[in-house]
Amino acid sequence: MRKIADSTVRRLSLYLRFLEEFEQQGTATVSSEELAARGGTTSAQVRKDLSFFGSFGKRGLGYSVPELVRRLREILGLGRTYRVAVIGAGKIGSALVRYRGFRQRGFEIVAIFDNDPLKIGSPLEGLVVRDVKQLEQTLIGEPVDIAVIVTPAEAAQGIADRVAALGVKALLNFAPIQVSVPDDIVIKSVNLALELEVLSYALTNR
Amino acid sequence: MRKIADSTVRRLSLYLRFLEEFEQQGTATVSSEELAARGGTTSAQVRKDLSFFGSFGKRGLGYSVPELVRRLREILGLGRTYRVAVIGAGKIGSALVRYRGFRQRGFEIVAIFDNDPLKIGSPLEGLVVRDVKQLEQTLIGEPVDIAVIVTPAEAAQGIADRVAALGVKALLNFAPIQVSVPDDIVIKSVNLALELEVLSYALTNR
Repeated sequence: MRKIADSTVRRLSLYLRFLEEFEQQGTATVSSEELAARGGTTSAQVRKDLSFFGSFGKRGLGYSVPELVRRLREILGLGRTYRVAVIGAGKIGSALVRYRGFRQRGFEIVAIFDNDPLKIGSPLEGLVVRDVKQLEQTLIGEPVDIAVIVTPAEAAQGIADRVAALGVKALLNFAPIQVSVPDDIVIKSVNLALELEVLSYALTNR
Repeated sequence: MRKIADSTVRRLSLYLRFLEEFEQQGTATVSSEELAARGGTTSAQVRKDLSFFGSFGKRGLGYSVPELVRRLREILGLGRTYRVAVIGAGKIGSALVRYRGFRQRGFEIVAIFDNDPLKIGSPLEGLVVRDVKQLEQTLIGEPVDIAVIVTPAEAAQGIADRVAALGVKALLNFAPIQVSVPDDIVIKSVNLALELEVLSYALTNR
């Protein structure tokens, strides 16, 4: 399969969420126009996005909701469970562990780490916060698919290096720093402060 | 000033965070190489990013930390306070109101709204959750610069339309849907589930 852009994957993800609601309501078919409205795009874009993955739907009849749900879940890799480690048990890290949306979509947090003696050993949603010194020891025994970095900026690159060395192939970075990883590792960043500064920049320079 | 890309603004924001740490430590100058390391980029990119905004630094001497901090804060529009309304008092909305990083950078949450009778009227970090029916009434009397949408997907577009009609020029959307706004409004989205699905897509289609 050829490589497709993140923006396409994001739209597929939005279509899927909409289709799942339709499926729950028992709706059998959906048009590209309805999917377009949900994804904030055009019906031509919807048809193009879906054409990357083969032929869907019939002209004039729309798409079969259950079939498209099944195919999109397959394309997005959502048919399976991903094991996730969270590094950093501060406010955001703890909130992530408590966030039920993760598990509902197959992302299971199996370990959380911190370097604060006051946090190490304390219970959190059925887990116990582990010492980050035990990162290698723990993740060699119980490998994870995804590492979520929720450390202060100055610790993030070191943690990324350590999880990369452990063979973890996907990282989600919440630390306010750009983290470098080898080319075979995929990394996504979520940074609220940066998004806010893009807004303040736009408000200031209109 | 000509329009610059979001990716440039994000790097400026990362440089600024790094420079502020340097300033606290009393460091007088910084090289483009040091800034590049922090932003996960090259020194040529740093010089290019900063050149958008005029001439900084001296060849061989690096950049003056206090001067660059001052200019970047000015460029990013961080010299002032922004009034922020949060619409949606669920888990994420409440966490945002409690998040101290907002106020530290000049983003002051002045109102939070919900449509749940159990939440309306309850206290939250010095605010009281207001009925979303009072959105217009409240924001006409006390205008905000930024609206943060933390509603379920199906409510997000309606809220975006209402705040746009009130003249709010910047939106931050956490709802799992693509929201459309008029061209003169800037909108940024933060969607954890989508980022995770980009990761699972990448893990599946390697």
